[in-house]
Amino acid sequence: MSLRDAILGKTEADFRAAAAGIAPHAIVTPLLAAPAPAGREIRIKCENLQPGGSFKIRCAANIVEQLPDDAAAHGLVTASAGNFAPAVAMVGAARGFRLTCHVPVNAAAVKLAALERLGVAVVAHAFPDWWRIMETRDAGDPDARFLHPVCEEDGITGNGTMALELVEQWPQLDTVIVPFGGGGMISGIAAAMRAMQAGIKVLACEIDAAAPLAAAFAAGRPVPFERSATFANGPGTQSVLDIMWPLLRDLIDGVVVVSEAEALAAFQTLAHDSHVIVEAQSAIAYAAARSSRHSGRNVAAVLSGGNIDPAALLTNLSA
Amino acid sequence: MSLRDAILGKTEADFRAAAAGIAPHAIVTPLLAAPAPAGREIRIKCENLQPGGSFKIRCAANIVEQLPDDAAAHGLVTASAGNFAPAVAMVGAARGFRLTCHVPVNAAAVKLAALERLGVAVVAHAFPDWWRIMETRDAGDPDARFLHPVCEEDGITGNGTMALELVEQWPQLDTVIVPFGGGGMISGIAAAMRAMQAGIKVLACEIDAAAPLAAAFAAGRPVPFERSATFANGPGTQSVLDIMWPLLRDLIDGVVVVSEAEALAAFQTLAHDSHVIVEAQSAIAYAAARSSRHSGRNVAAVLSGGNIDPAALLTNLSA
Repeated sequence: MSLRDAILGKTEADFRAAAAGIAPHAIVTPLLAAPAPAGREIRIKCENLQPGGSFKIRCAANIVEQLPDDAAAHGLVTASAGNFAPAVAMVGAARGFRLTCHVPVNAAAVKLAALERLGVAVVAHAFPDWWRIMETRDAGDPDARFLHPVCEEDGITGNGTMALELVEQWPQLDTVIVPFGGGGMISGIAAAMRAMQAGIKVLACEIDAAAPLAAAFAAGRPVPFERSATFANGPGTQSVLDIMWPLLRDLIDGVVVVSEAEALAAFQTLAHDSHVIVEAQSAIAYAAARSSRHSGRNVAAVLSGGNIDPAALLTNLSA
Repeated sequence: MSLRDAILGKTEADFRAAAAGIAPHAIVTPLLAAPAPAGREIRIKCENLQPGGSFKIRCAANIVEQLPDDAAAHGLVTASAGNFAPAVAMVGAARGFRLTCHVPVNAAAVKLAALERLGVAVVAHAFPDWWRIMETRDAGDPDARFLHPVCEEDGITGNGTMALELVEQWPQLDTVIVPFGGGGMISGIAAAMRAMQAGIKVLACEIDAAAPLAAAFAAGRPVPFERSATFANGPGTQSVLDIMWPLLRDLIDGVVVVSEAEALAAFQTLAHDSHVIVEAQSAIAYAAARSSRHSGRNVAAVLSGGNIDPAALLTNLSA
């Protein structure tokens, strides 16, 4: 079965089972009111307050909890820009799993430091080589169990648990805006919303300097995207992964693209008014929530994570 | 009846009634795991994520909700360093109440700006004159209803609602550490813990440069304290208010005093690891929670608020 068909076949009960499974590791994150333009209410889903500082604990916990012991006999291996691997290490440590993580050379130092602290073996690659691993799942160690940070069925289901919380926390919710990295988070949320027949619009968001999903929707298929240096300096994706496209195409209601200035202003409002620190992707989500480029009235912005380098934090607050 | 006797006479049912009353205005704040020294677990009670950015919404909501309409016929007046008055304005606006706030000249600009936005009439005073209003409740307008930011019975009861949440969120909690400003927050929490017979130690915390409560415990009565310029540059108190002392003396299990360096390190850990922005008082609470100057094992630090001037935020993050 294709990944698309597997995810679209998930029922509400599947997502509820995942929520129960990850409960020992992930918290039900708060959904807080945030400043909004007139005529709209915005609430922020604070995944940056999760253990490990990002939503990836949902994804990692649902994968690792379901691995049989012998699956990790030769270790676990992943390619991660930073948030997925620490989450796997945190959950896997209790089961004695060893983890190797392949990272791009420009991964945030704060994320690499977290990997070191957690005892993860780190292998750095030039971005194209790292991206090749993301596309092929071939990290040069066929005996180890490869865990993909985006395209694992159990990981996507784990991400979908956020949708259950959103609907319970805010029955009047009509639109949820989700940062697009590889698409694992938004696919999970959108699939769970569909399984619940919640009638809630699920929008992706990107920054204009790094917008491969908007490009894919425009072209009708994944196309290479020439990223420029940007506020959102995470490695992200060069294009939409082929395996994810059918899922994204069928599940997402649209893409909101914001400018760097909008993202920066959103970052500062989140810090000064909401008192939370976020990664760039999360500021993009809040910027998109405030944007007039969609017509949502009760809008949730998913703040995916908070692991930002201290230097970048100062830069963003000083700008 | 004295304020002490009124507060010590509160039952668990009184605090539960307050919790129900403030529910339309205040949230149940998250209690999050935070980095801790070996042998201790620390969780942070994130009042900085409340509407208005501080715990004062609990206090203000419980006061304003219980005011009869005619009590505010000639307006409401308060003396507030900044967080109480906006909270009163937020809750009172729905009832059409007008508010005048007397502030010390060194109140944080970000708090004054919030007052302006909320339509509060602001009157600034030199610190000694402002402090006299805090001591006498005489703001020169005998017709207006004066609401004290610290010593209102209903305000203290409102603050106590936090204790109900703490006990429910963390049954293993053994120690809670509460910033000391005027004593309204810690009195409420300690009185509710006592009413619940929760068996939980309630410790105040202060920074060494501004520690009037520790001085009062040392002297056996409130004594003047010569504040020096400090990390915690809020106006705070020059000494413990006479009316609060019997309550504090009988309810508090101790005072943990931290250094400016400890508070600053705590501020940065909260930002970088927990992804929250706090006021100085809250960093003091987390610093005290980490300190070896008490023997708590399962320790909650109350992060009282997040309204810090952007310039002070940058200074604290750059240090």
